[in-house]
Amino acid sequence: MNDQVEQLLGGNRRALARLLTAVENQVVGLGEILSDIFPHTGRAWVIGVTGAPGTGKSTLVTALAKAYRALGKTVAIIAVDPTSPFSGGAILGDRIRMRDLSGDSGVFIRSMATRGNLGGLSRATRDAIRVMDAAGFDIIIVETVGAGQSEVDIALAAKTTLVVDAPGLGDDVQAIKAGILEIADILVVNKADRPGAKNTVRSLKTMLELGHPGSRSQVVAHHGQLLQVESKGEVEHHEEMWIPPIVETAASEGKGIDELIESINRHIHFLANDEALVKLESQQIEIELYDRLRDALMAQLLQKIPGNVFADVIGRIQAREIDPESAVEAVLAKVP
Amino acid sequence: MNDQVEQLLGGNRRALARLLTAVENQVVGLGEILSDIFPHTGRAWVIGVTGAPGTGKSTLVTALAKAYRALGKTVAIIAVDPTSPFSGGAILGDRIRMRDLSGDSGVFIRSMATRGNLGGLSRATRDAIRVMDAAGFDIIIVETVGAGQSEVDIALAAKTTLVVDAPGLGDDVQAIKAGILEIADILVVNKADRPGAKNTVRSLKTMLELGHPGSRSQVVAHHGQLLQVESKGEVEHHEEMWIPPIVETAASEGKGIDELIESINRHIHFLANDEALVKLESQQIEIELYDRLRDALMAQLLQKIPGNVFADVIGRIQAREIDPESAVEAVLAKVP
Repeated sequence: MNDQVEQLLGGNRRALARLLTAVENQVVGLGEILSDIFPHTGRAWVIGVTGAPGTGKSTLVTALAKAYRALGKTVAIIAVDPTSPFSGGAILGDRIRMRDLSGDSGVFIRSMATRGNLGGLSRATRDAIRVMDAAGFDIIIVETVGAGQSEVDIALAAKTTLVVDAPGLGDDVQAIKAGILEIADILVVNKADRPGAKNTVRSLKTMLELGHPGSRSQVVAHHGQLLQVESKGEVEHHEEMWIPPIVETAASEGKGIDELIESINRHIHFLANDEALVKLESQQIEIELYDRLRDALMAQLLQKIPGNVFADVIGRIQAREIDPESAVEAVLAKVP
Repeated sequence: MNDQVEQLLGGNRRALARLLTAVENQVVGLGEILSDIFPHTGRAWVIGVTGAPGTGKSTLVTALAKAYRALGKTVAIIAVDPTSPFSGGAILGDRIRMRDLSGDSGVFIRSMATRGNLGGLSRATRDAIRVMDAAGFDIIIVETVGAGQSEVDIALAAKTTLVVDAPGLGDDVQAIKAGILEIADILVVNKADRPGAKNTVRSLKTMLELGHPGSRSQVVAHHGQLLQVESKGEVEHHEEMWIPPIVETAASEGKGIDELIESINRHIHFLANDEALVKLESQQIEIELYDRLRDALMAQLLQKIPGNVFADVIGRIQAREIDPESAVEAVLAKVP
């Protein structure tokens, strides 16, 4: 086994940092390292934290990490920055806000951006979670900003997903909420000491009742079906439903954090029950496998087909001689 | 040729609406229709509008559409909703805000969500743009909420991308801006009549200077390279650089819209010059082709490999007997 991997498993923080950089850059040889690490994963509890801008997610994550530390748990934090797929600049602000945690060797914070496309970011995030898991952290918190793919990725990697809201964010943000509500295992109304918090709670309750989001594992299952993944049997009707609770916090004052941890514990207990966790994991693995297969198939194709075939087809599309979907058929017909 | 296509090309609005629904649902037979339509596309100017929540994008789009109408141009608006990949609920609010435009037959507004994954949304958006292009609209405005993949998609489909900002949105939103700044051809500071607008302009200027984002066509080129697309020759050094201008608007008052259109016209002129448009289009087509190939390859694989192979491999990953990347190799080794 690789020296670095051994050091990682032994709790060496420098090896951890180096491996995370390797993951972020998706370096050559990473596959072997991840393969060595993999048997040592699956022990950490992965908590995804997402929500609209301005809800105070980073403050909440900091408060949550402190509370887990007080309970004697080690905590790793991954701040995912999906906003810069091109240059890969990580959000400095998050790290600044989390400086309260610095100096505690039981906490490890890492911002993750990507130099590649968003597919690359979702792969790197999954890999980083595994590296931190193998390093022995009890709790891994994955925080992401924004709406869209990054939230979905969180739902596909986390065991418990928190969706954070706050009062007074306006209409446009409300629109974002409607979408990410569906991936929530727990809804957090942060800044609950501000005016309008009760309204926010009320409107979330209404949305929950309207949307019947059910448990996130169903959402993941649904996503799987969209990817044409075979359904793993019918939803069993005797299965208990998880209704996302709404927890009020004022993270900057440390208020409501104990209640939040209690809700997370209830969710852990719920998943452990009735093999729901096994099912959730299996669905997550299924989707990851498909993502990786898609990438691998494309890499194979690029080796089989000479570059000038692509250039030629692109020219013909641009000249409007052939449409993109017919061009796909034309390219695939040339595979030897 | 399909009757519906003929009606679409003849300007029939009901055929347009029906085809957009077909696109949104990615119905069987859509490929043939899009193939018939394709030679009639490429005439509209596609403007992408994106930015953080709360910047007043919909109001800006409405004002922009009105101004183009006053200039005698027909306008189609696509409001992309990437926030609900699971249930596919379109943002009703946008349509409500745009009701000023109703009753004008020279304007067509459509919200687009997706019943599938985000890849599906980006495909449907590209297809919808082509349908509206073939229907003869002069200007197609694609608006999207949120950060992440949807912005990238806009950069990959639009000819001119506007990134909208506004004063007083707070730190977290600032973080989002850093990422999407890079896809901007034109930066719009909306709500410029509000306090703090000068600060917003100043901070955008600083970010522009720090980030050297250059022209978006370079960003698209960069994205292409990330997808391992062959580079289309070196960046020519005699090539003129496009420096994104910052335009101040107060869209709800109709202020600054003429200046914005002037900036868009300058960008159109810039792209027409020096074959930059041809290059941008070619890069966009390249990325689309790769996306479609990836999907097609996966569909092929699912036909070739029996379902139980996947189930078996997923079980072995879950038991930590094999890591996901090695599992990919194992599956591909079984392709007959």
